[in-house]
Amino acid sequence: MLTVFGSVALDTIRTPSKILKNTLGGAATYAAISASFFVKPGLIAVIGHDFPKKYYNILSKFVNLDGLVNAVGKSFRYDGSYDKTLTFRTTNKTELNVLGTFRPTVPEHFRRSEYVYLANNDPKQNALILKEFDKVKFSMCDTINFWINSQRSDVIKMMGVVDSVVINDEEAKLLTKTHNLIKCAKKIMEWGTKYVIIKKGEHGSLLFYDDVVFPSPAFSMENIVDPTGAGDSFAGGMIGHMASKNSTKISTIREAVVYGNIMGAYAVEKYGVYGLTNLKKSQIQTRFKKYKKMVKF
Amino acid sequence: MLTVFGSVALDTIRTPSKILKNTLGGAATYAAISASFFVKPGLIAVIGHDFPKKYYNILSKFVNLDGLVNAVGKSFRYDGSYDKTLTFRTTNKTELNVLGTFRPTVPEHFRRSEYVYLANNDPKQNALILKEFDKVKFSMCDTINFWINSQRSDVIKMMGVVDSVVINDEEAKLLTKTHNLIKCAKKIMEWGTKYVIIKKGEHGSLLFYDDVVFPSPAFSMENIVDPTGAGDSFAGGMIGHMASKNSTKISTIREAVVYGNIMGAYAVEKYGVYGLTNLKKSQIQTRFKKYKKMVKF
Repeated sequence: MLTVFGSVALDTIRTPSKILKNTLGGAATYAAISASFFVKPGLIAVIGHDFPKKYYNILSKFVNLDGLVNAVGKSFRYDGSYDKTLTFRTTNKTELNVLGTFRPTVPEHFRRSEYVYLANNDPKQNALILKEFDKVKFSMCDTINFWINSQRSDVIKMMGVVDSVVINDEEAKLLTKTHNLIKCAKKIMEWGTKYVIIKKGEHGSLLFYDDVVFPSPAFSMENIVDPTGAGDSFAGGMIGHMASKNSTKISTIREAVVYGNIMGAYAVEKYGVYGLTNLKKSQIQTRFKKYKKMVKF
Repeated sequence: MLTVFGSVALDTIRTPSKILKNTLGGAATYAAISASFFVKPGLIAVIGHDFPKKYYNILSKFVNLDGLVNAVGKSFRYDGSYDKTLTFRTTNKTELNVLGTFRPTVPEHFRRSEYVYLANNDPKQNALILKEFDKVKFSMCDTINFWINSQRSDVIKMMGVVDSVVINDEEAKLLTKTHNLIKCAKKIMEWGTKYVIIKKGEHGSLLFYDDVVFPSPAFSMENIVDPTGAGDSFAGGMIGHMASKNSTKISTIREAVVYGNIMGAYAVEKYGVYGLTNLKKSQIQTRFKKYKKMVKF
Protein backbone atom coordinates (compact mmCIF):
# COMPACT_ATOMS: atom_id res chain seq x y z
CA MET A 1 0.00 0.00 0.00
CA LEU A 2 1.00 3.63 -0.58
CA THR A 3 0.13 6.46 1.77
CA VAL A 4 0.49 10.12 0.81
CA PHE A 5 0.65 12.79 3.50
CA GLY A 6 0.40 16.42 2.50
CA SER A 7 -1.75 19.39 1.64
CA VAL A 8 -5.11 19.56 -0.06
CA ALA A 9 -5.77 23.14 -1.08
CA LEU A 10 -8.05 25.57 -2.77
CA ASP A 11 -5.70 27.20 -5.27
CA THR A 12 -5.93 30.45 -7.14
CA ILE A 13 -3.58 30.08 -10.09
CA ARG A 14 -2.89 32.99 -12.38
CA THR A 15 -1.37 32.00 -15.73
CA PRO A 16 -0.91 34.36 -18.69
CA SER A 17 -3.78 32.66 -20.49
CA LYS A 18 -6.24 31.91 -17.68
CA ILE A 19 -6.99 32.56 -14.02
CA LEU A 20 -8.33 29.67 -11.95
CA LYS A 21 -10.02 30.71 -8.70
CA ASN A 22 -10.35 28.32 -5.74
CA THR A 23 -9.56 25.30 -7.84
CA LEU A 24 -8.65 21.92 -6.36
CA GLY A 25 -4.93 21.90 -5.57
CA GLY A 26 -2.30 20.99 -3.00
CA ALA A 27 0.82 18.85 -3.12
CA ALA A 28 -0.88 15.73 -1.78
CA THR A 29 -3.81 16.13 -4.16
CA TYR A 30 -1.51 16.04 -7.19
CA ALA A 31 0.76 13.33 -5.79
CA ALA A 32 -2.09 11.05 -4.73
CA ILE A 33 -4.12 11.42 -7.92
CA SER A 34 -0.97 10.82 -9.96
CA ALA A 35 -0.11 7.73 -7.90
CA SER A 36 -3.67 6.44 -8.27
CA PHE A 37 -2.94 5.38 -11.85
CA PHE A 38 -0.57 2.80 -10.39
CA VAL A 39 -2.11 1.84 -7.00
CA LYS A 40 -4.99 3.11 -4.87
CA PRO A 41 -3.22 5.42 -2.42
CA GLY A 42 -4.36 6.43 1.04
CA LEU A 43 -4.38 10.17 1.71
CA ILE A 44 -3.66 11.90 5.02
CA ALA A 45 -4.72 15.55 4.83
CA VAL A 46 -7.08 18.14 6.22
CA ILE A 47 -9.85 20.19 4.63
CA GLY A 48 -12.17 22.87 6.04
CA HIS A 49 -15.93 23.25 6.08
CA ASP A 50 -15.77 25.30 2.87
CA PHE A 51 -14.27 22.47 0.82
CA PRO A 52 -16.58 21.96 -2.17
CA LYS A 53 -18.38 18.66 -2.45
CA LYS A 54 -17.39 18.38 -6.11
CA TYR A 55 -13.71 18.39 -5.18
CA TYR A 56 -14.32 15.82 -2.47
CA ASN A 57 -15.98 13.68 -5.12
CA ILE A 58 -12.99 14.03 -7.45
CA LEU A 59 -10.60 12.98 -4.69
CA SER A 60 -12.77 10.04 -3.62
CA LYS A 61 -12.74 8.71 -7.16
CA PHE A 62 -8.97 8.26 -7.09
CA VAL A 63 -7.90 8.03 -3.48
CA ASN A 64 -8.78 6.30 -0.20
CA LEU A 65 -9.99 9.19 1.95
CA ASP A 66 -10.10 7.44 5.34
CA GLY A 67 -7.26 9.73 6.44
CA LEU A 68 -8.89 12.97 5.26
CA VAL A 69 -9.87 15.08 8.25
CA ASN A 70 -12.74 17.53 7.94
CA ALA A 71 -11.80 20.25 10.42
CA VAL A 72 -13.58 23.30 11.73
CA GLY A 73 -12.39 26.36 9.82
CA LYS A 74 -11.51 27.30 6.27
CA SER A 75 -9.48 25.12 3.92
CA PHE A 76 -5.84 25.84 3.15
CA ARG A 77 -5.64 28.37 0.34
CA TYR A 78 -2.81 29.27 -2.01
CA ASP A 79 -2.66 32.08 -4.55
CA GLY A 80 0.18 32.27 -7.10
CA SER A 81 1.00 33.93 -10.43
CA TYR A 82 3.17 32.61 -13.25
CA ASP A 83 5.29 34.83 -15.48
CA LYS A 84 4.69 34.78 -19.23
CA THR A 85 7.24 31.99 -19.77
CA LEU A 86 5.46 29.83 -17.14
CA THR A 87 8.86 29.32 -15.53
CA PHE A 88 8.66 31.52 -12.46
CA ARG A 89 5.87 31.60 -9.91
CA THR A 90 5.24 34.38 -7.43
CA THR A 91 3.25 33.61 -4.29
CA ASN A 92 0.56 36.23 -3.78
CA LYS A 93 -0.99 34.78 -0.65
CA THR A 94 -0.86 31.69 1.54
CA GLU A 95 -3.66 31.14 4.07
CA LEU A 96 -2.86 28.12 6.23
CA ASN A 97 -6.31 28.05 7.89
CA VAL A 98 -7.08 24.48 9.10
CA LEU A 99 -3.63 23.32 7.97
CA GLY A 100 -2.03 25.54 10.61
CA THR A 101 -3.35 23.55 13.55
CA PHE A 102 -3.62 20.12 11.91
CA ARG A 103 -2.05 17.30 13.92
CA PRO A 104 -1.99 14.38 11.52
CA THR A 105 -2.31 10.78 12.64
CA VAL A 106 -2.15 7.64 10.57
CA PRO A 107 -5.38 5.62 10.39
CA GLU A 108 -4.90 2.09 11.72
CA HIS A 109 -5.23 0.35 8.35
CA PHE A 110 -2.77 2.79 6.70
CA ARG A 111 -0.01 1.81 9.13
CA ARG A 112 0.98 -1.23 7.12
CA SER A 113 1.84 0.93 4.08
CA GLU A 114 5.16 -0.16 2.60
CA TYR A 115 5.38 3.00 0.52
CA VAL A 116 5.04 6.42 2.12
CA TYR A 117 5.21 9.79 0.43
CA LEU A 118 5.63 12.83 2.65
CA ALA A 119 4.92 15.94 0.60
CA ASN A 120 6.38 19.37 1.32
CA ASN A 121 5.03 19.51 4.89
CA ASP A 122 6.57 20.76 8.12
CA PRO A 123 9.75 18.64 8.30
CA LYS A 124 9.23 17.81 11.98
CA GLN A 125 5.72 16.59 11.24
CA ASN A 126 7.00 14.51 8.33
CA ALA A 127 9.64 12.86 10.51
CA LEU A 128 7.15 12.19 13.30
CA ILE A 129 4.40 10.71 11.16
CA LEU A 130 6.85 8.37 9.45
CA LYS A 131 7.38 6.64 12.81
CA GLU A 132 3.71 5.66 12.90
CA PHE A 133 4.16 3.30 9.96
CA ASP A 134 5.14 -0.28 10.82
CA LYS A 135 6.66 -1.80 7.71
CA VAL A 136 7.98 0.93 5.46
CA LYS A 137 10.01 -0.37 2.51
CA PHE A 138 10.42 2.98 0.79
CA SER A 139 9.75 6.47 2.09
CA MET A 140 10.19 9.67 0.13
CA CYS A 141 9.92 13.33 1.15
CA ASP A 142 9.89 16.67 -0.62
CA THR A 143 10.51 20.14 0.78
CA ILE A 144 10.14 23.79 -0.23
CA ASN A 145 11.87 27.14 0.22
CA PHE A 146 9.63 28.04 3.14
CA TRP A 147 10.93 25.19 5.33
CA ILE A 148 14.51 25.51 4.11
CA ASN A 149 14.53 29.16 5.09
CA SER A 150 12.70 28.75 8.40
CA GLN A 151 13.70 25.28 9.66
CA ARG A 152 16.79 24.21 7.75
CA SER A 153 18.12 21.94 10.50
CA ASP A 154 14.78 20.11 10.75
CA VAL A 155 14.74 19.68 6.98
CA ILE A 156 18.21 18.12 7.20
CA LYS A 157 17.11 15.82 10.04
CA MET A 158 14.07 14.72 8.04
CA MET A 159 16.35 13.83 5.14
CA GLY A 160 18.22 11.52 7.47
CA VAL A 161 15.16 9.39 8.25
CA VAL A 162 13.68 8.83 4.79
CA ASP A 163 14.89 6.51 2.05
CA SER A 164 14.71 9.16 -0.63
CA VAL A 165 14.42 12.87 -1.15
CA VAL A 166 12.72 14.43 -4.16
CA ILE A 167 13.44 18.13 -4.49
CA ASN A 168 13.58 20.73 -7.23
CA ASP A 169 16.89 22.11 -8.45
CA GLU A 170 16.60 25.62 -7.00
CA GLU A 171 15.58 24.26 -3.62
CA ALA A 172 18.41 21.73 -3.66
CA LYS A 173 20.87 24.58 -4.28
CA LEU A 174 19.31 26.73 -1.55
CA LEU A 175 19.35 23.88 0.94
CA THR A 176 22.89 22.67 0.32
CA LYS A 177 24.38 26.10 -0.41
CA THR A 178 26.13 24.78 -3.49
CA HIS A 179 25.59 25.23 -7.25
CA ASN A 180 26.55 21.97 -8.90
CA LEU A 181 23.64 19.54 -8.71
CA ILE A 182 25.90 16.51 -8.24
CA LYS A 183 27.48 18.21 -5.25
CA CYS A 184 23.98 19.10 -3.97
CA ALA A 185 22.88 15.48 -4.18
CA LYS A 186 26.04 14.16 -2.51
CA LYS A 187 25.53 16.55 0.37
CA ILE A 188 21.91 15.46 0.81
CA MET A 189 22.97 11.79 0.74
CA GLU A 190 25.54 12.54 3.44
CA TRP A 191 22.62 13.53 5.68
CA GLY A 192 21.40 9.94 5.53
CA THR A 193 19.04 9.39 2.63
CA LYS A 194 19.94 6.76 0.06
CA TYR A 195 18.36 8.26 -3.05
CA VAL A 196 18.06 11.85 -4.21
CA ILE A 197 15.89 12.90 -7.12
CA ILE A 198 16.41 16.45 -8.35
CA LYS A 199 13.57 17.77 -10.48
CA LYS A 200 14.56 20.27 -13.16
CA GLY A 201 11.19 21.17 -14.69
CA GLU A 202 11.40 21.24 -18.49
CA HIS A 203 14.90 19.74 -18.27
CA GLY A 204 13.72 16.54 -16.61
CA SER A 205 15.31 15.03 -13.53
CA LEU A 206 18.44 13.53 -12.05
CA LEU A 207 18.36 10.44 -9.84
CA PHE A 208 21.37 9.92 -7.58
CA TYR A 209 22.42 6.89 -5.54
CA ASP A 210 25.86 5.62 -4.46
CA ASP A 211 28.12 7.30 -7.04
CA VAL A 212 25.62 6.91 -9.86
CA VAL A 213 23.65 9.59 -11.71
CA PHE A 214 20.64 8.73 -13.86
CA PRO A 215 19.56 11.77 -15.87
CA SER A 216 16.22 11.53 -17.59
CA PRO A 217 14.98 14.28 -19.87
CA ALA A 218 11.45 15.58 -19.55
CA PHE A 219 8.88 14.29 -22.00
CA SER A 220 9.01 17.07 -24.57
CA MET A 221 5.93 19.27 -24.48
CA GLU A 222 4.96 21.98 -26.89
CA ASN A 223 1.84 23.13 -25.11
CA ILE A 224 2.19 23.74 -21.40
CA VAL A 225 -0.68 25.66 -19.87
CA ASP A 226 -0.25 25.32 -16.09
CA PRO A 227 2.88 23.97 -14.37
CA THR A 228 1.15 23.73 -10.97
CA GLY A 229 1.58 20.32 -9.40
CA ALA A 230 4.08 19.01 -11.95
CA GLY A 231 6.65 18.13 -9.29
CA ASP A 232 4.05 16.55 -7.01
CA SER A 233 2.66 14.55 -9.92
CA PHE A 234 6.22 13.44 -10.68
CA ALA A 235 6.68 12.20 -7.12
CA GLY A 236 3.29 10.49 -7.06
CA GLY A 237 3.90 8.73 -10.37
CA MET A 238 7.35 7.65 -9.27
CA ILE A 239 6.42 6.13 -5.90
CA GLY A 240 3.12 4.88 -7.33
CA HIS A 241 4.97 2.83 -9.92
CA MET A 242 7.29 1.40 -7.24
CA ALA A 243 4.32 0.53 -5.02
CA SER A 244 2.54 -1.17 -7.92
CA LYS A 245 5.61 -3.33 -8.56
CA ASN A 246 6.23 -3.63 -4.80
CA SER A 247 9.90 -3.25 -5.62
CA THR A 248 12.76 -1.06 -4.46
CA LYS A 249 15.22 -2.54 -6.97
CA ILE A 250 17.39 0.00 -8.74
CA SER A 251 15.97 -0.98 -12.13
CA THR A 252 12.45 -0.31 -10.80
CA ILE A 253 13.49 3.03 -9.31
CA ARG A 254 15.05 4.14 -12.62
CA GLU A 255 11.91 3.14 -14.48
CA ALA A 256 9.81 4.87 -11.79
CA VAL A 257 11.65 8.14 -12.41
CA VAL A 258 10.63 7.94 -16.08
CA TYR A 259 7.01 7.40 -15.03
CA GLY A 260 7.47 10.44 -12.80
CA ASN A 261 8.53 12.50 -15.80
CA ILE A 262 5.57 11.26 -17.78
CA MET A 263 3.05 12.06 -15.05
CA GLY A 264 4.60 15.53 -14.62
CA ALA A 265 4.13 16.09 -18.35
CA TYR A 266 0.44 15.12 -18.16
CA ALA A 267 -0.08 17.46 -15.21
CA VAL A 268 1.05 20.57 -17.11
CA GLU A 269 -0.96 19.92 -20.27
CA LYS A 270 -4.23 21.09 -18.72
CA TYR A 271 -5.23 23.60 -16.07
CA GLY A 272 -5.37 22.48 -12.44
CA VAL A 273 -5.74 18.77 -11.71
CA TYR A 274 -7.59 18.10 -14.95
CA GLY A 275 -4.45 16.98 -16.82
CA LEU A 276 -4.47 14.03 -14.42
CA THR A 277 -8.13 13.43 -13.71
CA ASN A 278 -9.04 13.02 -17.38
CA LEU A 279 -6.27 10.51 -17.98
CA LYS A 280 -6.60 6.83 -18.81
CA LYS A 281 -4.08 4.20 -17.69
CA SER A 282 -3.52 3.12 -21.27
CA GLN A 283 -2.36 6.64 -22.20
CA ILE A 284 0.42 6.39 -19.61
CA GLN A 285 1.68 3.15 -21.12
CA THR A 286 1.54 4.63 -24.61
CA ARG A 287 3.54 7.63 -23.50
CA PHE A 288 6.06 5.41 -21.71
CA LYS A 289 6.67 3.57 -25.00
CA LYS A 290 6.95 6.90 -26.83
CA TYR A 291 9.44 8.07 -24.23
CA LYS A 292 11.59 4.96 -24.76
CA LYS A 293 11.60 5.63 -28.49
CA MET A 294 12.25 9.34 -27.96
CA VAL A 295 15.49 8.86 -26.02
CA LYS A 296 16.90 5.96 -28.05
CA PHE A 297 20.17 6.34 -29.95
CA MET B 1 36.31 15.63 -45.46
CA LEU B 2 35.18 18.17 -42.89
CA THR B 3 35.92 21.89 -43.09
CA VAL B 4 35.43 24.25 -40.16
CA PHE B 5 35.13 28.00 -40.77
CA GLY B 6 35.27 30.34 -37.81
CA SER B 7 37.29 32.32 -35.35
CA VAL B 8 40.66 31.57 -33.84
CA ALA B 9 41.22 33.88 -30.89
CA LEU B 10 43.43 34.93 -28.07
CA ASP B 11 41.06 34.68 -25.12
CA THR B 12 41.19 36.21 -21.68
CA ILE B 13 38.91 34.07 -19.54
CA ARG B 14 38.14 35.04 -15.98
CA THR B 15 36.69 32.20 -13.89
CA PRO B 16 36.17 32.34 -10.11
CA SER B 17 39.15 30.01 -9.61
CA LYS B 18 41.58 31.16 -12.31
CA ILE B 19 42.27 33.88 -14.87
CA LEU B 20 43.69 32.81 -18.23
CA LYS B 21 45.29 35.62 -20.22
CA ASN B 22 45.67 35.49 -24.01
CA THR B 23 45.01 31.77 -24.11
CA LEU B 24 44.22 29.89 -27.31
CA GLY B 25 40.49 30.20 -28.01
CA GLY B 26 37.87 30.88 -30.66
CA ALA B 27 34.82 28.97 -31.84
CA ALA B 28 36.61 27.31 -34.74
CA THR B 29 39.56 26.33 -32.55
CA TYR B 30 37.31 24.39 -30.18
CA ALA B 31 35.12 22.95 -32.93
CA ALA B 32 38.03 21.85 -35.11
CA ILE B 33 40.10 20.33 -32.29
CA SER B 34 37.00 18.52 -31.02
CA ALA B 35 36.23 17.21 -34.53
CA SER B 36 39.83 16.09 -34.96
CA PHE B 37 39.19 13.10 -32.69
CA PHE B 38 36.90 11.78 -35.43
CA VAL B 39 38.43 13.07 -38.71
CA LYS B 40 41.23 15.45 -39.66
CA PRO B 41 39.35 18.70 -40.28
CA GLY B 42 40.42 21.59 -42.46
CA LEU B 43 40.29 25.01 -40.82
CA ILE B 44 39.45 28.33 -42.46
CA ALA B 45 40.37 31.19 -40.16
CA VAL B 46 42.62 34.20 -39.73
CA ILE B 47 45.34 35.01 -37.20
CA GLY B 48 47.53 38.08 -36.75
CA HIS B 49 51.27 38.57 -36.51
CA ASP B 50 51.09 38.31 -32.71
CA PHE B 51 49.72 34.77 -32.74
CA PRO B 52 52.07 32.68 -30.58
CA LYS B 53 54.03 29.94 -32.31
CA LYS B 54 53.08 27.51 -29.51
CA TYR B 55 49.38 27.93 -30.29
CA TYR B 56 50.06 27.46 -33.99
CA ASN B 57 51.81 24.25 -33.08
CA ILE B 58 48.85 23.04 -31.03
CA LEU B 59 46.47 23.74 -33.91
CA SER B 60 48.72 22.08 -36.48
CA LYS B 61 48.80 18.91 -34.41
CA PHE B 62 45.03 18.45 -34.76
CA VAL B 63 43.94 20.35 -37.84
CA ASN B 64 44.83 20.93 -41.50
CA LEU B 65 45.92 24.58 -41.51
CA ASP B 66 46.04 25.17 -45.28
CA GLY B 67 43.11 27.57 -44.87
CA LEU B 68 44.63 29.52 -41.98
CA VAL B 69 45.50 33.03 -43.14
CA ASN B 70 48.28 34.92 -41.41
CA ALA B 71 47.21 38.55 -41.83
CA VAL B 72 48.86 41.87 -41.07
CA GLY B 73 47.58 43.15 -37.72
CA LYS B 74 46.71 41.78 -34.33
CA SER B 75 44.78 38.55 -33.73
CA PHE B 76 41.14 38.56 -32.73
CA ARG B 77 40.87 38.93 -28.95
CA TYR B 78 38.06 38.15 -26.57
CA ASP B 79 37.85 38.92 -22.85
CA GLY B 80 35.04 37.47 -20.70
CA SER B 81 34.20 36.81 -17.05
CA TYR B 82 32.11 34.00 -15.56
CA ASP B 83 29.95 34.39 -12.47
CA LYS B 84 30.59 32.16 -9.48
CA THR B 85 28.15 29.50 -10.71
CA LEU B 86 29.98 29.36 -14.08
CA THR B 87 26.58 29.79 -15.74
CA PHE B 88 26.66 33.39 -16.90
CA ARG B 89 29.41 35.06 -18.89
CA THR B 90 29.91 38.80 -19.25
CA THR B 91 31.88 40.09 -22.22
CA ASN B 92 34.46 42.62 -21.05
CA LYS B 93 36.02 43.34 -24.42
CA THR B 94 35.97 42.12 -28.02
CA GLU B 95 38.76 43.27 -30.36
CA LEU B 96 38.03 42.08 -33.88
CA ASN B 97 41.47 43.13 -35.23
CA VAL B 98 42.34 41.00 -38.31
CA LEU B 99 38.96 39.28 -38.12
CA GLY B 100 37.22 42.58 -38.96
CA THR B 101 38.58 42.75 -42.51
CA PHE B 102 39.00 39.03 -43.20
CA ARG B 103 37.52 37.86 -46.52
CA PRO B 104 37.59 34.10 -46.28
CA THR B 105 38.03 31.85 -49.30
CA VAL B 106 38.03 28.08 -49.48
CA PRO B 107 41.33 26.47 -50.46
CA GLU B 108 41.00 24.40 -53.65
CA HIS B 109 41.42 21.03 -51.94
CA PHE B 110 38.88 21.92 -49.21
CA ARG B 111 36.13 22.47 -51.79
CA ARG B 112 35.28 18.78 -51.95
CA SER B 113 34.37 18.71 -48.23
CA GLU B 114 31.13 16.84 -47.74
CA TYR B 115 30.80 18.17 -44.18
CA VAL B 116 31.00 21.87 -43.46
CA TYR B 117 30.73 23.59 -40.11
CA LEU B 118 30.17 27.33 -40.11
CA ALA B 119 30.79 28.67 -36.62
CA ASN B 120 29.17 31.80 -35.18
CA ASN B 121 30.48 34.06 -37.97
CA ASP B 122 28.86 36.92 -39.87
CA PRO B 123 25.76 35.18 -41.29
CA LYS B 124 26.26 36.72 -44.75
CA GLN B 125 29.84 35.42 -44.82
CA ASN B 126 28.66 31.97 -43.73
CA ALA B 127 26.05 31.84 -46.50
CA LEU B 128 28.55 33.05 -49.11
CA ILE B 129 31.36 30.69 -48.23
CA LEU B 130 29.03 27.69 -48.25
CA LYS B 131 28.52 28.26 -52.00
CA GLU B 132 32.23 27.65 -52.60
CA PHE B 133 31.90 23.99 -51.64
CA ASP B 134 31.05 21.58 -54.46
CA LYS B 135 29.62 18.48 -52.82
CA VAL B 136 28.21 19.31 -49.42
CA LYS B 137 26.29 16.45 -47.84
CA PHE B 138 25.78 18.11 -44.47
CA SER B 139 26.30 21.71 -43.46
CA MET B 140 25.76 23.13 -39.99
CA CYS B 141 25.87 26.68 -38.66
CA ASP B 142 25.81 28.33 -35.26
CA THR B 143 25.03 31.93 -34.35
CA ILE B 144 25.27 34.28 -31.37
CA ASN B 145 23.41 37.20 -29.77
CA PHE B 146 25.58 39.74 -31.56
CA TRP B 147 24.37 38.67 -35.03
CA ILE B 148 20.79 38.07 -33.90
CA ASN B 149 20.62 41.62 -32.55
CA SER B 150 22.42 43.30 -35.43
CA GLN B 151 21.54 41.21 -38.52
CA ARG B 152 18.52 39.09 -37.65
CA SER B 153 17.25 38.83 -41.23
CA ASP B 154 20.64 37.62 -42.46
CA VAL B 155 20.73 35.05 -39.67
CA ILE B 156 17.32 33.79 -40.81
CA LYS B 157 18.48 33.68 -44.46
CA MET B 158 21.59 31.71 -43.44
CA MET B 159 19.38 29.20 -41.65
CA GLY B 160 17.58 28.64 -44.94
CA VAL B 161 20.70 27.50 -46.79
CA VAL B 162 22.24 25.06 -44.29
CA ASP B 163 21.16 21.53 -43.46
CA SER B 164 21.28 22.09 -39.74
CA VAL B 165 21.43 24.79 -37.12
CA VAL B 166 23.12 24.34 -33.77
CA ILE B 167 22.24 27.09 -31.31
CA ASN B 168 22.05 27.57 -27.57
CA ASP B 169 18.69 27.84 -25.80
CA GLU B 170 18.83 31.52 -24.89
CA GLU B 171 19.86 32.48 -28.43
CA ALA B 172 17.13 30.30 -29.92
CA LYS B 173 14.57 32.14 -27.78
CA LEU B 174 16.00 35.54 -28.69
CA LEU B 175 16.05 34.71 -32.38
CA THR B 176 12.56 33.23 -32.63
CA LYS B 177 10.96 35.52 -30.05
CA THR B 178 9.30 32.56 -28.37
CA HIS B 179 9.87 30.72 -25.06
CA ASN B 180 9.05 27.08 -25.66
CA LEU B 181 12.07 25.34 -27.21
CA ILE B 182 9.92 23.08 -29.40
CA LYS B 183 8.23 26.16 -30.82
CA CYS B 184 11.67 27.78 -31.31
CA ALA B 185 12.92 24.77 -33.25
CA LYS B 186 9.80 24.57 -35.41
CA LYS B 187 10.17 28.24 -36.32
CA ILE B 188 13.83 27.75 -37.27
CA MET B 189 12.90 24.70 -39.39
CA GLU B 190 10.26 26.81 -41.16
CA TRP B 191 13.12 29.03 -42.33
CA GLY B 192 14.49 26.11 -44.34
CA THR B 193 16.90 24.03 -42.30
CA LYS B 194 16.14 20.36 -41.77
CA TYR B 195 17.69 19.80 -38.35
CA VAL B 196 17.87 22.02 -35.30
CA ILE B 197 20.03 21.24 -32.31
CA ILE B 198 19.39 23.36 -29.23
CA LYS B 199 22.21 23.26 -26.70
CA LYS B 200 21.16 23.65 -23.06
CA GLY B 201 24.52 23.59 -21.27
CA GLU B 202 24.36 21.39 -18.16
CA HIS B 203 20.91 20.18 -19.25
CA GLY B 204 22.19 18.63 -22.48
CA SER B 205 20.61 19.18 -25.86
CA LEU B 206 17.52 18.73 -27.98
CA LEU B 207 17.69 17.54 -31.59
CA PHE B 208 14.69 18.36 -33.76
CA TYR B 209 13.72 17.07 -37.23
CA ASP B 210 10.33 16.56 -38.87
CA ASP B 211 8.03 16.29 -35.85
CA VAL B 212 10.59 14.41 -33.77
CA VAL B 213 12.47 15.57 -30.66
CA PHE B 214 15.53 13.72 -29.39
CA PRO B 215 16.52 15.01 -25.96
CA SER B 216 19.90 13.93 -24.68
CA PRO B 217 21.07 14.83 -21.19
CA ALA B 218 24.53 16.20 -20.64
CA PHE B 219 27.18 13.82 -19.41
CA SER B 220 26.97 14.55 -15.68
CA MET B 221 29.97 16.48 -14.42
CA GLU B 222 30.86 17.31 -10.86
CA ASN B 223 33.91 19.40 -11.58
CA ILE B 224 33.50 22.06 -14.22
CA VAL B 225 36.28 24.62 -14.29
CA ASP B 226 35.82 26.57 -17.54
CA PRO B 227 32.71 26.38 -19.76
CA THR B 228 34.41 28.26 -22.62
CA GLY B 229 34.10 26.41 -25.91
CA ALA B 230 31.67 23.76 -24.64
CA GLY B 231 29.10 24.52 -27.34
CA ASP B 232 31.74 24.69 -30.09
CA SER B 233 33.22 21.41 -28.92
CA PHE B 234 29.72 19.92 -28.99
CA ALA B 235 29.25 21.02 -32.60
CA GLY B 236 32.72 19.81 -33.62
CA GLY B 237 32.22 16.41 -32.01
CA MET B 238 28.81 16.06 -33.55
CA ILE B 239 29.74 16.86 -37.16
CA GLY B 240 33.11 15.13 -36.71
CA HIS B 241 31.37 11.88 -35.86
CA MET B 242 29.06 12.22 -38.87
CA ALA B 243 32.04 12.93 -41.16
CA SER B 244 33.92 9.92 -39.80
CA LYS B 245 30.94 7.69 -40.61
CA ASN B 246 30.29 9.64 -43.81
CA SER B 247 26.62 9.33 -42.98
CA THR B 248 23.66 11.66 -42.66
CA LYS B 249 21.29 8.92 -41.55
CA ILE B 250 19.04 9.82 -38.62
CA SER B 251 20.55 7.08 -36.48
CA THR B 252 24.02 8.54 -37.09
CA ILE B 253 22.83 12.07 -36.33
CA ARG B 254 21.27 10.96 -33.03
CA GLU B 255 24.48 9.17 -32.08
CA ALA B 256 26.47 12.23 -33.20
CA VAL B 257 24.52 14.43 -30.79
CA VAL B 258 25.60 12.15 -27.94
CA TYR B 259 29.23 12.46 -29.07
CA GLY B 260 28.63 16.21 -29.08
CA ASN B 261 27.51 16.07 -25.45
CA ILE B 262 30.55 14.00 -24.55
CA MET B 263 33.00 16.37 -26.25
CA GLY B 264 31.32 19.34 -24.57
CA ALA B 265 31.81 17.62 -21.22
CA TYR B 266 35.52 17.09 -21.91
CA ALA B 267 35.92 20.74 -22.89
CA VAL B 268 34.70 22.08 -19.54
CA GLU B 269 36.78 19.78 -17.36
CA LYS B 270 39.99 21.75 -17.87
CA TYR B 271 40.86 25.38 -18.52
CA GLY B 272 41.01 26.63 -22.11
CA VAL B 273 41.49 24.08 -24.88
CA TYR B 274 43.39 21.70 -22.64
CA GLY B 275 40.34 19.58 -21.82
CA LEU B 276 40.42 18.61 -25.49
CA THR B 277 44.09 18.69 -26.38
CA ASN B 278 45.07 16.22 -23.65
CA LEU B 279 42.41 13.76 -24.70
CA LYS B 280 42.88 10.29 -26.19
CA LYS B 281 40.44 8.75 -28.67
CA SER B 282 39.99 5.72 -26.43
CA GLN B 283 38.70 7.97 -23.63
CA ILE B 284 35.91 9.19 -25.88
CA GLN B 285 34.79 5.64 -26.60
CA THR B 286 34.93 4.78 -22.90
CA ARG B 287 32.78 7.78 -22.04
CA PHE B 288 30.33 6.96 -24.83
CA LYS B 289 29.85 3.51 -23.28
CA LYS B 290 29.45 5.09 -19.83
CA TYR B 291 26.89 7.47 -21.27
CA LYS B 292 24.88 4.58 -22.72
CA LYS B 293 24.88 2.91 -19.31
CA MET B 294 24.08 6.19 -17.55
CA VAL B 295 20.83 6.83 -19.45
CA LYS B 296 19.56 3.23 -19.53
CA PHE B 297 16.32 2.28 -17.81
